[in-house]
Amino acid sequence: MEKTCTVMLPLTMNSSEKPQTVCIFGTGDFGKSLGFKMFQCGYSVVFGSRNSRMSSLLPSDAEVFSYSEAAQKSDIILIAIHREHYEFLRELTEDLNGKILVDVSNNPKINQYPESNAEYLAQLVPGAYVVKAFNTISAWALQSGALDASRQVFVCGNDSKAKQRVMDIVRALGLTPLDRGSLKAATEIENYPLQLFPMWRFPFYLSAALCLFFFIYCVIRDVIYLYVNENKDSTFRIAVSIPNRVFPITALTLLALVYLPGVIAAILQLYQGTKYRRFPDWLDHWMLCRKQLGLVALGFAFLHAIYTLVIPIRYYVRWRIRNTTLTQVITKKDDPFLTSVAWHSDSYLSLGILGFFLFVLLGITSLPSVSNMMNWREFRFIQSKLGYLTLILCTAHALLYGGKRFLSPSILRWYLPSAYVLALIIPCTVLVIKFILIMPCINNTLMRIRRGWERDSKCSKSALNGKSDI
Amino acid sequence: MEKTCTVMLPLTMNSSEKPQTVCIFGTGDFGKSLGFKMFQCGYSVVFGSRNSRMSSLLPSDAEVFSYSEAAQKSDIILIAIHREHYEFLRELTEDLNGKILVDVSNNPKINQYPESNAEYLAQLVPGAYVVKAFNTISAWALQSGALDASRQVFVCGNDSKAKQRVMDIVRALGLTPLDRGSLKAATEIENYPLQLFPMWRFPFYLSAALCLFFFIYCVIRDVIYLYVNENKDSTFRIAVSIPNRVFPITALTLLALVYLPGVIAAILQLYQGTKYRRFPDWLDHWMLCRKQLGLVALGFAFLHAIYTLVIPIRYYVRWRIRNTTLTQVITKKDDPFLTSVAWHSDSYLSLGILGFFLFVLLGITSLPSVSNMMNWREFRFIQSKLGYLTLILCTAHALLYGGKRFLSPSILRWYLPSAYVLALIIPCTVLVIKFILIMPCINNTLMRIRRGWERDSKCSKSALNGKSDI
Amino acid sequence: MEKTCTVMLPLTMNSSEKPQTVCIFGTGDFGKSLGFKMFQCGYSVVFGSRNSRMSSLLPSDAEVFSYSEAAQKSDIILIAIHREHYEFLRELTEDLNGKILVDVSNNPKINQYPESNAEYLAQLVPGAYVVKAFNTISAWALQSGALDASRQVFVCGNDSKAKQRVMDIVRALGLTPLDRGSLKAATEIENYPLQLFPMWRFPFYLSAALCLFFFIYCVIRDVIYLYVNENKDSTFRIAVSIPNRVFPITALTLLALVYLPGVIAAILQLYQGTKYRRFPDWLDHWMLCRKQLGLVALGFAFLHAIYTLVIPIRYYVRWRIRNTTLTQVITKKDDPFLTSVAWHSDSYLSLGILGFFLFVLLGITSLPSVSNMMNWREFRFIQSKLGYLTLILCTAHALLYGGKRFLSPSILRWYLPSAYVLALIIPCTVLVIKFILIMPCINNTLMRIRRGWERDSKCSKSALNGKSDI
Repeated sequence: MEKTCTVMLPLTMNSSEKPQTVCIFGTGDFGKSLGFKMFQCGYSVVFGSRNSRMSSLLPSDAEVFSYSEAAQKSDIILIAIHREHYEFLRELTEDLNGKILVDVSNNPKINQYPESNAEYLAQLVPGAYVVKAFNTISAWALQSGALDASRQVFVCGNDSKAKQRVMDIVRALGLTPLDRGSLKAATEIENYPLQLFPMWRFPFYLSAALCLFFFIYCVIRDVIYLYVNENKDSTFRIAVSIPNRVFPITALTLLALVYLPGVIAAILQLYQGTKYRRFPDWLDHWMLCRKQLGLVALGFAFLHAIYTLVIPIRYYVRWRIRNTTLTQVITKKDDPFLTSVAWHSDSYLSLGILGFFLFVLLGITSLPSVSNMMNWREFRFIQSKLGYLTLILCTAHALLYGGKRFLSPSILRWYLPSAYVLALIIPCTVLVIKFILIMPCINNTLMRIRRGWERDSKCSKSALNGKSDI
Repeated sequence: MEKTCTVMLPLTMNSSEKPQTVCIFGTGDFGKSLGFKMFQCGYSVVFGSRNSRMSSLLPSDAEVFSYSEAAQKSDIILIAIHREHYEFLRELTEDLNGKILVDVSNNPKINQYPESNAEYLAQLVPGAYVVKAFNTISAWALQSGALDASRQVFVCGNDSKAKQRVMDIVRALGLTPLDRGSLKAATEIENYPLQLFPMWRFPFYLSAALCLFFFIYCVIRDVIYLYVNENKDSTFRIAVSIPNRVFPITALTLLALVYLPGVIAAILQLYQGTKYRRFPDWLDHWMLCRKQLGLVALGFAFLHAIYTLVIPIRYYVRWRIRNTTLTQVITKKDDPFLTSVAWHSDSYLSLGILGFFLFVLLGITSLPSVSNMMNWREFRFIQSKLGYLTLILCTAHALLYGGKRFLSPSILRWYLPSAYVLALIIPCTVLVIKFILIMPCINNTLMRIRRGWERDSKCSKSALNGKSDI
Repeated sequence: MEKTCTVMLPLTMNSSEKPQTVCIFGTGDFGKSLGFKMFQCGYSVVFGSRNSRMSSLLPSDAEVFSYSEAAQKSDIILIAIHREHYEFLRELTEDLNGKILVDVSNNPKINQYPESNAEYLAQLVPGAYVVKAFNTISAWALQSGALDASRQVFVCGNDSKAKQRVMDIVRALGLTPLDRGSLKAATEIENYPLQLFPMWRFPFYLSAALCLFFFIYCVIRDVIYLYVNENKDSTFRIAVSIPNRVFPITALTLLALVYLPGVIAAILQLYQGTKYRRFPDWLDHWMLCRKQLGLVALGFAFLHAIYTLVIPIRYYVRWRIRNTTLTQVITKKDDPFLTSVAWHSDSYLSLGILGFFLFVLLGITSLPSVSNMMNWREFRFIQSKLGYLTLILCTAHALLYGGKRFLSPSILRWYLPSAYVLALIIPCTVLVIKFILIMPCINNTLMRIRRGWERDSKCSKSALNGKSDI
């Protein structure tokens, strides 16, 4: 529901109820924007400031008082002041006693201070109810009404009544409050707006590195080698042919890297005989960004699909086909239809299409609103069973595409094998190990470990004791 | 979680607790449907009506009483009556004192009355706790259980306990309550179900007009001109060739129109030297529907992509290729491979693919559940940085496609330039102005203005004063 | 917001407040995992167990007591024990009086017991406040932190304060609590994690059966018939050609089956003259899984689109085109351009593309987060109007594709018509009936019935009486 108060004038209070007064400390940009917005939504707004003269810039009806005076006008006070200047609030503790203080501040850096701004505020003014809110909203967005992005306002605080009051204001401004619990959550709420895709960083850099490596590799094999050995100018391949080689390779490698950590974890658990030992940090981090890795892989697979589909439109391809026909006309050579070649061409296309289809399906189910509709069992079914099927199909697609060519030594150029051969190493390794892991004898042990069983003698007793426990 | 009470019989109350009684005033379709549903979900339902005879149509267990009698049976009363007939409730004020009245009504038109139905009800029965709810649910959906669409029930009211009680009922019926705050929100809740894509109207009409204009333009240039001058029947182009010219042009123009208002706003702010002056209304409205404009543009880009990919399957294209080959065989003309043509063809294809890929990415990130996961910084990064990159790639794609042809006078037919030349005007303008705006000297001023700085002397002082405020 | 406590050490309590103590009964895998997680998030955890020795396996700081002792340490007790062993809690009723008991249990089968585990627990310990929670979270996910799927924790309970306390803990663990109302909802919450796509089963099996049938049908007509009659090996068609025949047929049939139940329901309502009679069960179930049917159909349409687009890359197609050209060169036959063939080829392609585009649009609007943004009117507009337009476009695409061929008897092989002819039966039937239903005379009656009117005399009176009711 698009619920914004776009009118400049406050809603006419035709009901007899008096508008609620909210006090804002600080007349900076954010304070003013918030004040404007509240004023538009029917609140009466009072500003607290060091000097009360510069009322010209504020909403016409708003009044500016000294901090102490302003505090007395309302029982909700928004502190739109930088943390460094909170100190002066100490002197106002008496005025602020029993009031609801809303901390809207952010810091320029993540984890800049030992405690969150809101907790610091709560220490400074122990008699007030501190609620953290509004820090995820931008002043610009508040004013322009362009709230497409984050209508979500994270709210936390120790007093549930104070929190409720603040959440009502958030709702009145057309925003969505999200209760994040007690004031302990303030640190995370304050760090939140400073993040820039933290989970995507590793997948992004990894895929960029893979792309670059394979791009250079292909340029050496397909452009420089041909230029040096055959003096042929095939630089135009850089535009379509080589990307369409680099993208599928990167996609397949990244897809395999999604399933590699799970396989490593299983081996570790089998080796250690318990699931209660922590994985190394790199493995933990890797496992947490599997979804992002998979989505980046899907992006490359999508690019590969389109690059492949435009092939027949390319000038080079049309010229080559025309040339082949002409040569055939001139040489009058017979061109019989080879069923085996048709089988080969059609089956790797078909495998690729089915693999891509399942990949897209995986991508759709990882959309937050879709995965929220699934229970744990369904999610695992999709991401594990369907995921491995995708990996199998895509690997088979690449294997078939190469076919016998991969084995012939003529494919080597300057001792470098085709890039596709390199691309197949990780996927095949993952699939082989996974195949070993799902063999009944090994799988049973692994399942027992994952249910809490441990190999040491002590633990088996404990498992016996705990058999009635979940 | 699919939580619906599909059984017709009420849940057996094997616990000792007595089922809660709910009273419904009005035995119209919606009242009956709601009653049925509540009955199925274990509530005891009592109807209030002017005459209590027509019980045959109601759930078998439900009883029908006079309004006054029914009101005494329960402390929650759903008013399933049209607003025009609320008047009679005045006589029941005594019976309704302290009760929770749930207003479920809608109006046939947006903003039909000065105050919302729920607020009107609250004025009529001042002693009751009025809660607005259920108006977004359709009777048909309640009965058929087909609640795929809006399981969401917006709830608002001034008394939080009454609201909580109603929200519990909403949950019990398998619906999702959404607290929208105080009764002031009722107007918007009542307008909500009457809307039909209000934000999409402008983008839709604009794109329809653009499509129509360019369609006629292309028909004149490519069909009528050829028919008049060369007497060639090329009407078949209307099916694929001309749409595949109109769609990319519309897509590119719309994409540029997404970024044009931002550029205009920046110029306005630079000119006015402040961000605290309101934009003209048309600019405000334009800025608010940028997302919709972009998504419509994405739709056209998607169509362009598929229309392009089917090119080699078309009879016309196959015939032309065959014909070219045949002509070549007959004339025995040499057909050397031109690297420059290959470069040109491949690079505009590549630019188009990459532009389309980024465009799809932008589309995905504008899905509500995805954009909700992003903070403001991430959202701006995607929509601004990635958006401009998309615009640059797509404009370059169109520029390269035209290539030298755009400059040659032979492209004019009846003094009309190619449609692509027209399509490039807005994107190029936007990119050039944006390029000027991000030059350090101008950008710095703009950034200062957006942080609240104002050019007038008074303001610079205020900025000085307010430097500790957010 | 990624809010997880990844550190192993408890958060340093630099504030003076004492950490809250939570008691967990049962030291099984889930109990331990939950304990670990709570410990990491700053809670003090106490375990209750039959024997208190096996502390070595638990978090180092956690203490293990007898059940009775542990219960006294905290007012929130998580019962991480299988339902079969709840019996012993009867002896502890005194210790558990007034405490909040959180039932986290699941059963191995859906609806295994007459009442839910949580309700059973509430009966055993009548003096406690029972809250159902955490059963949708997996122990593995809690430990590994891989909570991509279900961060959602459904919570229900009769005491709202107890529920609030538990929801605060849920939030503190970085999970999202979802209030599902009173303890009656526990049955559904307990069944939820056991489901495996219940709504998708019918569409999945139906489409699998359709695919199999048409696959065999096409193999008989296109492979076996050709082999028997012309001794031609066309097995390679199994890889691409036949799937690309089976998929569009299945897609079109499924799409028509989405709209068939609505048409049947309308006929039933017209026949019965009322909407207050229940549909037969099969129709009800069918109507509830229309969305899933449509999405499966979209999947097949997507596959059809890609299979069609790769056509020009296939070896068989390239060989055939080359061969046609060569034959033409040799026979020197003229190959004039036929505008009618160009029209035919281009228009069925264009219809297919537009139909696919609308189909994708329907798919996107059925994403939970998108359909949640729409009101009932918008949802009906999209799913009904746009849906029928899609069906019309796709049916026209198939009709045009077949064209005159469908009518010629030469298409019969072993008396079997082309598979496409079969595929058109259901869509055409649905469209013809729908066309009849929307004729004003019939449509008006239907609309009146759907607004609650009934054909019997009694009802028309009631409608008269109830005209003021919603």
